[in-house]
Amino acid sequence: MTQPLRLGIAGLGTVGAGVVRIVRRQAALLEARTGRRIEISAISARDRSRDRGLPLAAYAWEDDPVVLARRDDVDVFVELVGGADGVAKAATEAALNAGKDVVTANKAMLAIHGQALAEQAEALGRSIRFEAAVAGGIPVIKALSESLAGNEITRVMGVMNGTCNYILTRMEAEGLGYNALFQEAGRLGYLEADPTLDVGGIDAGHKLAILAAIAFGTRPDFDGIAIEGIERISLQDIRQAADMGYRIKLLGVAQRSARGLEQRMQPCLVPADSPLGQLEGGTNMVVLEGDAVEQIVLRGPGAGQGPTASAVIGDVCDLARGFRMPVFGQPAISLRRAPAAIAGLPAPYYLRMSLLDKPGALAKIARILGEAGVSIDRMRQYGHSEATAPVLFVTHKTTRAALDHALREIEQTDVIAGAPVVLRIEHV
Amino acid sequence: MTQPLRLGIAGLGTVGAGVVRIVRRQAALLEARTGRRIEISAISARDRSRDRGLPLAAYAWEDDPVVLARRDDVDVFVELVGGADGVAKAATEAALNAGKDVVTANKAMLAIHGQALAEQAEALGRSIRFEAAVAGGIPVIKALSESLAGNEITRVMGVMNGTCNYILTRMEAEGLGYNALFQEAGRLGYLEADPTLDVGGIDAGHKLAILAAIAFGTRPDFDGIAIEGIERISLQDIRQAADMGYRIKLLGVAQRSARGLEQRMQPCLVPADSPLGQLEGGTNMVVLEGDAVEQIVLRGPGAGQGPTASAVIGDVCDLARGFRMPVFGQPAISLRRAPAAIAGLPAPYYLRMSLLDKPGALAKIARILGEAGVSIDRMRQYGHSEATAPVLFVTHKTTRAALDHALREIEQTDVIAGAPVVLRIEHV
Repeated sequence: MTQPLRLGIAGLGTVGAGVVRIVRRQAALLEARTGRRIEISAISARDRSRDRGLPLAAYAWEDDPVVLARRDDVDVFVELVGGADGVAKAATEAALNAGKDVVTANKAMLAIHGQALAEQAEALGRSIRFEAAVAGGIPVIKALSESLAGNEITRVMGVMNGTCNYILTRMEAEGLGYNALFQEAGRLGYLEADPTLDVGGIDAGHKLAILAAIAFGTRPDFDGIAIEGIERISLQDIRQAADMGYRIKLLGVAQRSARGLEQRMQPCLVPADSPLGQLEGGTNMVVLEGDAVEQIVLRGPGAGQGPTASAVIGDVCDLARGFRMPVFGQPAISLRRAPAAIAGLPAPYYLRMSLLDKPGALAKIARILGEAGVSIDRMRQYGHSEATAPVLFVTHKTTRAALDHALREIEQTDVIAGAPVVLRIEHV
Repeated sequence: MTQPLRLGIAGLGTVGAGVVRIVRRQAALLEARTGRRIEISAISARDRSRDRGLPLAAYAWEDDPVVLARRDDVDVFVELVGGADGVAKAATEAALNAGKDVVTANKAMLAIHGQALAEQAEALGRSIRFEAAVAGGIPVIKALSESLAGNEITRVMGVMNGTCNYILTRMEAEGLGYNALFQEAGRLGYLEADPTLDVGGIDAGHKLAILAAIAFGTRPDFDGIAIEGIERISLQDIRQAADMGYRIKLLGVAQRSARGLEQRMQPCLVPADSPLGQLEGGTNMVVLEGDAVEQIVLRGPGAGQGPTASAVIGDVCDLARGFRMPVFGQPAISLRRAPAAIAGLPAPYYLRMSLLDKPGALAKIARILGEAGVSIDRMRQYGHSEATAPVLFVTHKTTRAALDHALREIEQTDVIAGAPVVLRIEHV
């Protein structure tokens, strides 16, 4: 008779409670599908007295996740504490050292300490699995590391922070400014304790670093990501992008070029009629491109109790079935340090500036762009009642360097008010 | 040192040649990712002399796939011959009996003989893997059987025949009738040798039977699927559906209800602005719904050399990594025989009929529908120059039984010409 697989769960917030719920409710299904009983031995959380609507008395309680991680009756340590460092990392290391496998939803820890943890796990013959760390219920880690194992991955991109997408799509739908929707997202509990993790693009950046490591066989390199948040996206840009057939998304892109690994997490324009452009609200979407598979698109809930717990349990089931592979898809010691591509691949750009009402103003801007080698695909000047007129440009493909050169010159002229808005256009 | 994993490949058509190409081109990548070298020992195809643009001389040649399947230097038999019976099945059985694992793209064989083959494989401790059998490069088998293992699956649906979707979207875009596009699809090589497999919904039905077995822990039951092809979809219905905000798709749906397992593969109306409604051309899309994950949507190329070979190689890599699980996700001997739900769950329906120009004609139709308990959500009567006027109804949710009862009465009246068109509306 096969032994049961015994879990120790640290962290009983939304996701942890969801995991306990599935293990209890679907015990028969899990056993039918994995051939083993899946049991909870012990749990740990910050507040023992809180009512989580679950009967927890049958499970041993540990105040300290590190102690939980080392318990003899735990086979798999489920880390749902969160945070890159501190107790989450200490308990993960303790679990590995004690011979346990680890399942975690902790994107910050993996993006920042993933390389060291993977080396430690693999040296000890243990697994770390983390489907829940990226895009909630969407099986993107498995698709990338297992289903597409025969592909040279060419590009990974996605909308991976539901809160940002919620704010951006509500701005367009309701005609409300960023600040009003940021406050609404806070009231609805959609923001992390430190909201810059969401709106600053950091949370999504952690996810991108993990995907890039698997996709390209490189060490997770969070510091190598060019990150820009959505805080400065105005309703005006959302409307004018829509007018040109685009939507603004906080888009992560990782791709390899001869110049190195390019990792960006920034607001971009995408065609309004593309799958990414049509993505509404808190839903996530990841696009995976490989030399053989061409392109697959995965869409689903990026957060929430059920979807995230579903991903955690999927990992637990893989361990129950005995599936073992290197943490990032190939041995950690073989992962290369990728040189960051400073200048991204050429792309079209959206530019908006406020032109002062002076003769020859537009001609001056157009001349500077032309001299910098930035060629204009489409231009629109809007009527104006005040002293400035909004002008939009969509450029042909250009390098960011050429564009920055032109923008520095433009800012030195006396024909524009304020700083130009520059957003990359990404075609899917 | 780990032994290489040695493949024997039967069938060197588009997909087989693609598999050989990936094994040759990505040898280093495959070894880095799986920890084993993946080699081809022997190959087999109908025509040895055909030039496939590949150097095949290094591989042993077998004329008979059954002999290939039994070779001592083969660990995994890759079956790409196709066809439910005949040599594909004989060679698969021979491979299992000789202790080999099997990777196949053969949906017909699995939909019809999957239960027996799974029982045989599991009794022998062998695996059959078949990601390529459903939706080409989209990792739907893995998502359903592994990623969603913690979910009670509630519904599986999808557009899984690219040729049908190509014909339907071209009909709308070009304003051409079914026959013209059927012929075009043939000229472009998009049709199977027996085209009713595609346009009759049989090929997509095979895929649905496989997904339903995994989703619901039931035996594959191809005969239990209500199948209807796209041959009778008219340009008029495509246009009038569009006018009401819908698109027509050949949609497979499998779901459980108290009445049993409902499996349908039939042309349906879906909202034009839903992910399924927006699916163009030969692309496939599968929607998976579970009690925890809510809904995930997977989209990608449903056919073609690269994508299908990518799926085959993904399976090969899983075997190289030592991943083993029951063929349909839980032991074949535990799969239940699901009673087919004769009457599907209630749904809204689209009805089109040609009303004769007689006083009270519309009132008579409306009265019959009302008396049968079919309530009308929207109705449109179009102007007419001839003796008949097209009339469309979108009903509220109703049972097919109530609708059929009304339609029998309507056909007996003297106020319509020809048979009404009835299409189910599926909301995603």
